Amino acid sequence: MSTDTSGRNAEDALARLAAVIESRLPARGGDPDKSYVARLLHRGPDAFLKKIGEEATEVVMAAKDADHGGDRTKLVNEVADLWFHSMIALAHYGFAPSDVVAELERREGTSGIEEKALRKAEARDASND
Amino acid sequence: MSTDTSGRNAEDALARLAAVIESRLPARGGDPDKSYVARLLHRGPDAFLKKIGEEATEVVMAAKDADHGGDRTKLVNEVADLWFHSMIALAHYGFAPSDVVAELERREGTSGIEEKALRKAEARDASND
Amino acid sequence: MSTDTSGRNAEDALARLAAVIESRLPARGGDPDKSYVARLLHRGPDAFLKKIGEEATEVVMAAKDADHGGDRTKLVNEVADLWFHSMIALAHYGFAPSDVVAELERREGTSGIEEKALRKAEARDASND
Amino acid sequence: MSTDTSGRNAEDALARLAAVIESRLPARGGDPDKSYVARLLHRGPDAFLKKIGEEATEVVMAAKDADHGGDRTKLVNEVADLWFHSMIALAHYGFAPSDVVAELERREGTSGIEEKALRKAEARDASND
Repeated sequence: MSTDTSGRNAEDALARLAAVIESRLPARGGDPDKSYVARLLHRGPDAFLKKIGEEATEVVMAAKDADHGGDRTKLVNEVADLWFHSMIALAHYGFAPSDVVAELERREGTSGIEEKALRKAEARDASND
Repeated sequence: MSTDTSGRNAEDALARLAAVIESRLPARGGDPDKSYVARLLHRGPDAFLKKIGEEATEVVMAAKDADHGGDRTKLVNEVADLWFHSMIALAHYGFAPSDVVAELERREGTSGIEEKALRKAEARDASND
Repeated sequence: MSTDTSGRNAEDALARLAAVIESRLPARGGDPDKSYVARLLHRGPDAFLKKIGEEATEVVMAAKDADHGGDRTKLVNEVADLWFHSMIALAHYGFAPSDVVAELERREGTSGIEEKALRKAEARDASND
Repeated sequence: MSTDTSGRNAEDALARLAAVIESRLPARGGDPDKSYVARLLHRGPDAFLKKIGEEATEVVMAAKDADHGGDRTKLVNEVADLWFHSMIALAHYGFAPSDVVAELERREGTSGIEEKALRKAEARDASND
């Protein structure tokens, strides 16, 4: 188990990366001939949304390989790709990772969230018998 | 555009959420009858990997709806679901969000990363003509 | 290798299955309380599109398991699920599997299709070096 | 609604296409420098499985565009891409589309299949309240 001791160092990393991505928006002068992110943003939603579906599939494949004895660190690379392309989508629609984290925090603070999801999952299983 | 002033707390929030998820691991005594996360971890990789594919699809649908005038905040909810289930996978394989953020930071620090991705994308386009 | 001697009946089977699915459309009186397909169609696109993302992920997982010595026939079940939910989407938008097969046939008949896809893929690889 | 009058003409199209795909298998001498399919098969499962995730996403995007007034025929093209890449996976693992169709037929013939799926879906909904 990796212990999360790097929290402090990585603290603002997502915010910094989001700022770089936002600087690649067409409205901010991002140049599709000089930047991969600017290029995806310039091409429009279908270009980066397709990447989200592709990267999610790569996360699943890396996890299955890890299940069968493959290199586990590949999973981290694929999740990084997935989150990175999610952040491009967030930037296009005017959001930042902090909005996502705030939503996750809100849920964590709401008692009963996990219990509700659990009841749903149990009902689903009961009906599988 | 949302300004990312909450970077410091945001990152702490991810670490805190990861700690909660890790406490739901079977080896840590997570109880599948009391917690949705414990239940997914107990059921094993296919259960939470399937959710990653499903949530990625929901991100894409929310984005397309936003393109056509729908509520943009739904996108934030769906990205939160996607990242949350990614974090369950990370915990199962012994990783934390800080590992993903460290990988993203490493790439940001490596000059030429975006340029390489860009050359790839340009070659792809050239061959589409 | 399975030999595809059942082509004639196979195609009829797809058309028959499509007719059943079409009979479940709300406009045709499909009852969401009596039929799974009617229910998905009644709930609208997001319900069956989400299933397409989920079933595609299950195809990928079954294939990876087969790579690692798992039961290969699971793949056939998952592809059947994926095609079945694709057919629900087709029905909703006014199409049948025969439209998909006609498109596949059209491509097969167009010389150079594979060569173009190949040049694209080669350009992509060249830029990966 | 498209009527399925082309069933007869398209009857053996899937079987013919499967035979072409199978002839591109490395063991059958498929040349990755001359054929897109041979190339995907030569590169191995991750190459064509990733495409399945990507094409499923494109089906979802085309459907959402159709929902919002876009060209519905794009959906047929994307489902064709999805089925085509599914058939490449089937060929790699020793199966043909007729195996998928046989499985769909088997389900159609099993009374109660839809009812079971329906009870599952209803239990899921009940727990959403």
